[in-house]
Amino acid sequence: MEEKEISQAVISRLPRYFRYLGELKDEGVERISSQELSELMKVTASQIRQDFNNFGGFGQQGYGYNVEYLYKEIGKILGLDEKHNFIIIGAGNLGQALGNYLNFERRGFIFRGMFDKNPALVGKDVRGVKVMPMEEMERFVKENDIDIAVLTIPKSGAEEVAERLVANGIRAIWNFAHVDLNVPEGIQVENVHLSDSLMKLSYNIGCYKREKDKA
Amino acid sequence: MEEKEISQAVISRLPRYFRYLGELKDEGVERISSQELSELMKVTASQIRQDFNNFGGFGQQGYGYNVEYLYKEIGKILGLDEKHNFIIIGAGNLGQALGNYLNFERRGFIFRGMFDKNPALVGKDVRGVKVMPMEEMERFVKENDIDIAVLTIPKSGAEEVAERLVANGIRAIWNFAHVDLNVPEGIQVENVHLSDSLMKLSYNIGCYKREKDKA
Repeated sequence: MEEKEISQAVISRLPRYFRYLGELKDEGVERISSQELSELMKVTASQIRQDFNNFGGFGQQGYGYNVEYLYKEIGKILGLDEKHNFIIIGAGNLGQALGNYLNFERRGFIFRGMFDKNPALVGKDVRGVKVMPMEEMERFVKENDIDIAVLTIPKSGAEEVAERLVANGIRAIWNFAHVDLNVPEGIQVENVHLSDSLMKLSYNIGCYKREKDKA
Repeated sequence: MEEKEISQAVISRLPRYFRYLGELKDEGVERISSQELSELMKVTASQIRQDFNNFGGFGQQGYGYNVEYLYKEIGKILGLDEKHNFIIIGAGNLGQALGNYLNFERRGFIFRGMFDKNPALVGKDVRGVKVMPMEEMERFVKENDIDIAVLTIPKSGAEEVAERLVANGIRAIWNFAHVDLNVPEGIQVENVHLSDSLMKLSYNIGCYKREKDKA
């Protein structure tokens, strides 16, 4: 497949395509036109065609897309045919919730280790993984082919932990700490700032109320 | 303040401004230029000025922004000076993690109730809130001035629960279920699709690796 520079906006939409195609496949749908997919997903058919053209198109004009083929191809593009080992730093409620989430495993993300600085949490079992002390993190990352670190720790310690992870070979950080991390080029960071998302919701509630009051 | 149609892209950036300004305020910084803010936040100064112009500008040319004033104003725009009562549907690990997160309280989001269909979880105490059975959800929403429902349930039940919530006066849904909800106009939905975020990370790891292999 030709490698082009694909925009992050297109990349952001791929998991959603993957999700819808997976559901169609499970329902036994074999082919779907960009028009039908457009109605289902509430994006324009032209956007769908444009997005898919980034990856060579996938479809034949007039025949629609083969659902299973498209599902598999998008999965491959997303790297879901490969295994990624991940660890979680921070064994609080959120860390435990993510460690217990079985769906990640189905997508090739394998939960391998968990770390916390709180001695009371060390030794706790989260889906077969025992929480380890922070001092063991570097060694574990190096010895266990860990790609991804999930940060579910307060923002105060996040930058330092990220530096230690990167120095020991981590390639990607899924960051739930409420801070933007500075990492070297080539290290992938995906932020989930939950408070930001809640504030956006709050804005939109207020905005709708003000509009209704005016009307 | 003039009400204009503000794009969701601008809205999405407000919580991040709010976060940085809060940190500057805590560090005792009184004034900041758009140039300094630009370097700190790694966005262009012109984007900052454009974003702020949507809300009347906030600043005087050449004097920079008053940090505390700007922090407060953005907080007001985000509706953080008002209280929002919220409930959580789904008392699993993720629901409990969100219920236990104290920072939401500081921003005016008050955790009032929690519901689960699993009888084994009913009665469990999450930060002073007792988990209630699903049958009590509608009455509770109506009687307790609940604005926001947080959905931390599997996708299979999410659509039906969302309908019941909307029918009983919920104005906003913070959706962690892995499905896009169909809600009437005026109901605000903010999705946190964790698997989508992880897949995007996976794509970017793979992409970087392919580029490196080529080089």
